[in-house]
Amino acid sequence: MDYSDVLTAAHRIDGHVLRTPVLEISPGLFFKLELLQHSGSFKVRGAFNRMLSAGELPPSGVIAASGGNHGLAVAYAARALGVRAEIFVPEVTSPVKVAGLAALGAHITQTGAIYSDAAEAAAKRAAETGALVVHAYDQAEVVAGQGTTGLEIVEQTGGVDTVVVAVGGGGLAAGTTLGTSGGASSPGSASGGGPGGSPRSASEPGAVAGPRIVAVEPERIPTLHEALRAGEPVPVEVGGVAADALGATKLGAIPFGILSSPRVRSVLVSDEAILQARRTLWARHRVAAEPAGATAYAALLSGVYTPAPGERVAVVLCGSNTDPATLTA
Amino acid sequence: MDYSDVLTAAHRIDGHVLRTPVLEISPGLFFKLELLQHSGSFKVRGAFNRMLSAGELPPSGVIAASGGNHGLAVAYAARALGVRAEIFVPEVTSPVKVAGLAALGAHITQTGAIYSDAAEAAAKRAAETGALVVHAYDQAEVVAGQGTTGLEIVEQTGGVDTVVVAVGGGGLAAGTTLGTSGGASSPGSASGGGPGGSPRSASEPGAVAGPRIVAVEPERIPTLHEALRAGEPVPVEVGGVAADALGATKLGAIPFGILSSPRVRSVLVSDEAILQARRTLWARHRVAAEPAGATAYAALLSGVYTPAPGERVAVVLCGSNTDPATLTA
Repeated sequence: MDYSDVLTAAHRIDGHVLRTPVLEISPGLFFKLELLQHSGSFKVRGAFNRMLSAGELPPSGVIAASGGNHGLAVAYAARALGVRAEIFVPEVTSPVKVAGLAALGAHITQTGAIYSDAAEAAAKRAAETGALVVHAYDQAEVVAGQGTTGLEIVEQTGGVDTVVVAVGGGGLAAGTTLGTSGGASSPGSASGGGPGGSPRSASEPGAVAGPRIVAVEPERIPTLHEALRAGEPVPVEVGGVAADALGATKLGAIPFGILSSPRVRSVLVSDEAILQARRTLWARHRVAAEPAGATAYAALLSGVYTPAPGERVAVVLCGSNTDPATLTA
Repeated sequence: MDYSDVLTAAHRIDGHVLRTPVLEISPGLFFKLELLQHSGSFKVRGAFNRMLSAGELPPSGVIAASGGNHGLAVAYAARALGVRAEIFVPEVTSPVKVAGLAALGAHITQTGAIYSDAAEAAAKRAAETGALVVHAYDQAEVVAGQGTTGLEIVEQTGGVDTVVVAVGGGGLAAGTTLGTSGGASSPGSASGGGPGGSPRSASEPGAVAGPRIVAVEPERIPTLHEALRAGEPVPVEVGGVAADALGATKLGAIPFGILSSPRVRSVLVSDEAILQARRTLWARHRVAAEPAGATAYAALLSGVYTPAPGERVAVVLCGSNTDPATLTA
């Protein structure tokens, strides 16, 4: 997979998804407001790309397992394209997301404790029905679709040194890595370069061009962090405040191949940092994020990643499927 | 006052306010997300322009009366510029806004039932202290500052046929009328033109160029509607769900002069339509608006204003100072 897959996806899903806006919150610090996307997260990008790539869809429609956001996206896309959607979610899925699935007319099965349990049940069911499987992160079309977020970031900011993005199964982070690899170079890149390495290291021999990707995970779901240590995706314990959105048990194989890059820096944030970022996004910026949607920003706010002076940084705020009453809690 | 005053204001306040993003929610329908502005509403634009126009500020700082949003904006700007802010708010002001004022370090007096009571008390106090009065809507610098919203709409959309905007005292609507009067013509104007008249009527002799302005008020606070009927601003009863933000007793004299234009169409919406628009903005678009911030959109959703096919429309979503727990109520 490469940049051209993301360009193809962008062309394919154009008109089906929103070009979400970018807000420059202070000089050189951009919020990509992907939480304003249809269905409340970036996931519709991959869902549409997968479904529109498949040609004619089977009578049994599409099937997906999800912590919630991917299911909402598949249900949204299925409704838009006039096909049946069957969605498997685990018990950890928040009531807001289950209600949203029902409102979109999806056929819902809630089973198992965490995402991987629901995924197993969905795989069995798909074998019976012949429905098109739309994977939450480990399919090329899904990764390419999510990558259109990165394409837009480059276009809308004129280029950045760094993109900060959350990681669950790795679809968004991997897609964004690809989607930012062919764009304009940052106007600020001459002065850019974080404390731990220059974004221009990407132009060294063997490296892929593009901004640094700061891949942020909750300490309690370190799928990328552990995969990079082990040299391959390995199972991790799943827990904490973002478990219904970043709760993959292990990183996807396709995302791992892409995220094993010198452009990518893996960092971890605490649950408390995530909740603090979420409160700040509401109180100071009037942005309503779910915990996973605030996880990338938590890396900046908590100082886990500190941009260098002049470094241009885009933060992907990726999900808002939450009970707004909890924003100030 | 004219377009050049808005250009001057834009130059003056650049860097102090956010260039809030525009989201194209469906082809030709744009949300101007001014509710992501510093202090949670457009009001900082006028506040900064007034304060930065004044030269050296008096030792007693600035003073303002407000339903809440203007006070928050003046307090925000005063803190940014390092001066004292004294804010008078009425009893109708929501607890969220009073808490916000306190967090910004403003000196708060809560007095009287509605905005006009607080305004009277603030005027007396200003005469004693010599603080710079920053009016909520009836000062040229304030109107020009709010008008930068309109400038940005033209730039960010490439031009629209119609701007839909809420009216309280009239500062934002009047400013937007000026700020959209010198921009690019709409790429869609060949096919534009609503049912009740063509936006190109503005190019007739004597008329000012620019898109149509649909000025939306709650039925329970019809300051512009009654002013246009009477031929001058007249007092109205103040009530309903948006009274803490659109609760001026009568339209400002400066706004009236600008809004008495063939470009402006005055429409009214019910409280129920406002609340429905607010719920829809959250449920469908993940935008958190206070009732006043949803009032413009209510005119579209309720069918009080129906764009013609192909008409390009920008809706100004102007305030988000609200308890998020009430977004789904």
